[in-house]
Amino acid sequence: MKPSKASARWNGDLKRGNGSMKPEHAPEIPFSLSTRFEGAQGSNPEEVVGAALAGCFSMALSLGLEKAGMKPESIQTRAEVHLEKDGEGFTIQKIDLVNETRASGGDDATFQKVAAETKKACPLSKALAAVPEISLRATLAT
Amino acid sequence: MKPSKASARWNGDLKRGNGSMKPEHAPEIPFSLSTRFEGAQGSNPEEVVGAALAGCFSMALSLGLEKAGMKPESIQTRAEVHLEKDGEGFTIQKIDLVNETRASGGDDATFQKVAAETKKACPLSKALAAVPEISLRATLAT
Repeated sequence: MKPSKASARWNGDLKRGNGSMKPEHAPEIPFSLSTRFEGAQGSNPEEVVGAALAGCFSMALSLGLEKAGMKPESIQTRAEVHLEKDGEGFTIQKIDLVNETRASGGDDATFQKVAAETKKACPLSKALAAVPEISLRATLAT
Repeated sequence: MKPSKASARWNGDLKRGNGSMKPEHAPEIPFSLSTRFEGAQGSNPEEVVGAALAGCFSMALSLGLEKAGMKPESIQTRAEVHLEKDGEGFTIQKIDLVNETRASGGDDATFQKVAAETKKACPLSKALAAVPEISLRATLAT
């Protein structure tokens, strides 16, 4: 498989500078010290990694449900990424995933089992396995 | 700190379905089976996580260089994310970071030391510590 590409830029020093992140096939995403650490309106790397995990989980859940004999209609996943001060630096301590799925052809027990397996096995979950806690609350609407 | 938010959606089954990823403060990023696994033009979760890591690294390098007495002007980082088939599933086996920095006030040895430390210590690097290999090639232009 061809590697997936992205780039980023930071101009100037930390406090007065500014940056942007650019997945190869998506628009540039600006960020700054204030949008990352000071609650100002705007994006940051944590939002972006949350989107990647939520996307990977949602796609993988579709496959998992099919394999379990279910018919997925729509899979919606929200991610909240908790960055916390940790000594000199910062650490992503927790990511909360909240999923709402519409699917037919299976019961809630099957759905919950597939959702839990997907949280462990999707590529982004595996890449983020060093995050101390990734929680999942998943709801099936038939 | 307030958590950073994102969401994603997958519609339908894996093969005919389609999805999107949405960092709270950035445009929606569409993806599909073909843009993730079949080389079609378009985004995927690997591009997006690459952008997050490149952004985090670039911002953190700015701070690291300042702390080492240097004056960062521009920091540009490209990321290539290598997803590989791994038994039944897929795994991000490697992320290559290629950095070009313009900064004054320090020599290459100082720069290389700070860049290597940043690769280990920035929040996204720590979150992605389970990825088998993250490589870094960094170049200083004064």
